[in-house]
Amino acid sequence: MHYPEPISKLIDSFMKLPGIGPKTAVRLAFFVLEMKEDDVFEFGKALVNAKRDLTYCSNCHHITDRDPCMICEDTSRDKTMICVVHDSKDVIAMEKMKEYRGLYHVLHGAISPVEGIGPEDIKVAELIKRLQDDTVQELIMATDPNIEGEATAMYISRLVKPTGIKITRIAHGLPVGGDLEYADEVTLSRALEGRREI
Amino acid sequence: MHYPEPISKLIDSFMKLPGIGPKTAVRLAFFVLEMKEDDVFEFGKALVNAKRDLTYCSNCHHITDRDPCMICEDTSRDKTMICVVHDSKDVIAMEKMKEYRGLYHVLHGAISPVEGIGPEDIKVAELIKRLQDDTVQELIMATDPNIEGEATAMYISRLVKPTGIKITRIAHGLPVGGDLEYADEVTLSRALEGRREI
Repeated sequence: MHYPEPISKLIDSFMKLPGIGPKTAVRLAFFVLEMKEDDVFEFGKALVNAKRDLTYCSNCHHITDRDPCMICEDTSRDKTMICVVHDSKDVIAMEKMKEYRGLYHVLHGAISPVEGIGPEDIKVAELIKRLQDDTVQELIMATDPNIEGEATAMYISRLVKPTGIKITRIAHGLPVGGDLEYADEVTLSRALEGRREI
Repeated sequence: MHYPEPISKLIDSFMKLPGIGPKTAVRLAFFVLEMKEDDVFEFGKALVNAKRDLTYCSNCHHITDRDPCMICEDTSRDKTMICVVHDSKDVIAMEKMKEYRGLYHVLHGAISPVEGIGPEDIKVAELIKRLQDDTVQELIMATDPNIEGEATAMYISRLVKPTGIKITRIAHGLPVGGDLEYADEVTLSRALEGRREI
């Protein structure tokens, strides 16, 4: 005998989550037993509801509980700008900033020849389609500042350039609050390259 | 707008777990959206079932899905020995060893004057009651080797001593595979104290 079945099942479920090994799973499962019954039921319902009710916006592919999503439906937003990001978490990060008022396009990944992910595996074709009605005037490439993100930004910009739409890339440089001393050379070189008159 | 409601509820639920902050909660919630639907439903069910179906054994207070628990009901086990531990996780640890064939008693805590936990807050009275029918001949104190654990072991042993039941304490010493160089002085002194002829 090890654990009674209900708890061993719960441990197995916790272990399917990323970064949670057997010991943490046991700790979390035992914690659940001590939680208020309402909270546990709420948790269970939240899991099932999140999986059942959430879908991706058919326009921008951001995660949403209605289609089209709140951002695409918001008439106060600037429809001439599309900010292209890797995933829905990036949209949330941008929205938290409360400065950007344009639309988004979530690619759901990045081009990565090493991992065998090509442009056809992410939402590039869907993006090109959105550009066809001439509303969009600027495409902001906000893909991650790593090899895959750069490759994706480059690929899309080459594809879109002939249409005459302005394509921009978010700036690379030192993070605010960061320390020049600890910045890597590539970031530092980008920060120097992107210097502005003050 | 931040997160769509179904996912923000899920994030809130994850954040109620110990050691899971806002960033991990977001990561886990988004991971759940990518999981197979069956796995998510299984997870939700496991949560609710664990909370609903698990109870504590009325005899030894170990966590169980039936009362009395499998260990107390197992007729092949040695009913003359009770191993006293802090919580159900300790029972599991002992059971994994597959060497101990006696019964258990789960105290659900340790005496800690600092935290205001007295003998009446843990299952001490229940233990004393179990000793009254003269079946038990040995009480093995397997409480944690820290101040609270020692205090609890000491308290119970003083209480039980007059009955003539043999009371033992699990050995303190160097953990197997450990390194003498890194052992703290107290452990080292206990290891020396408990040395045996070979």
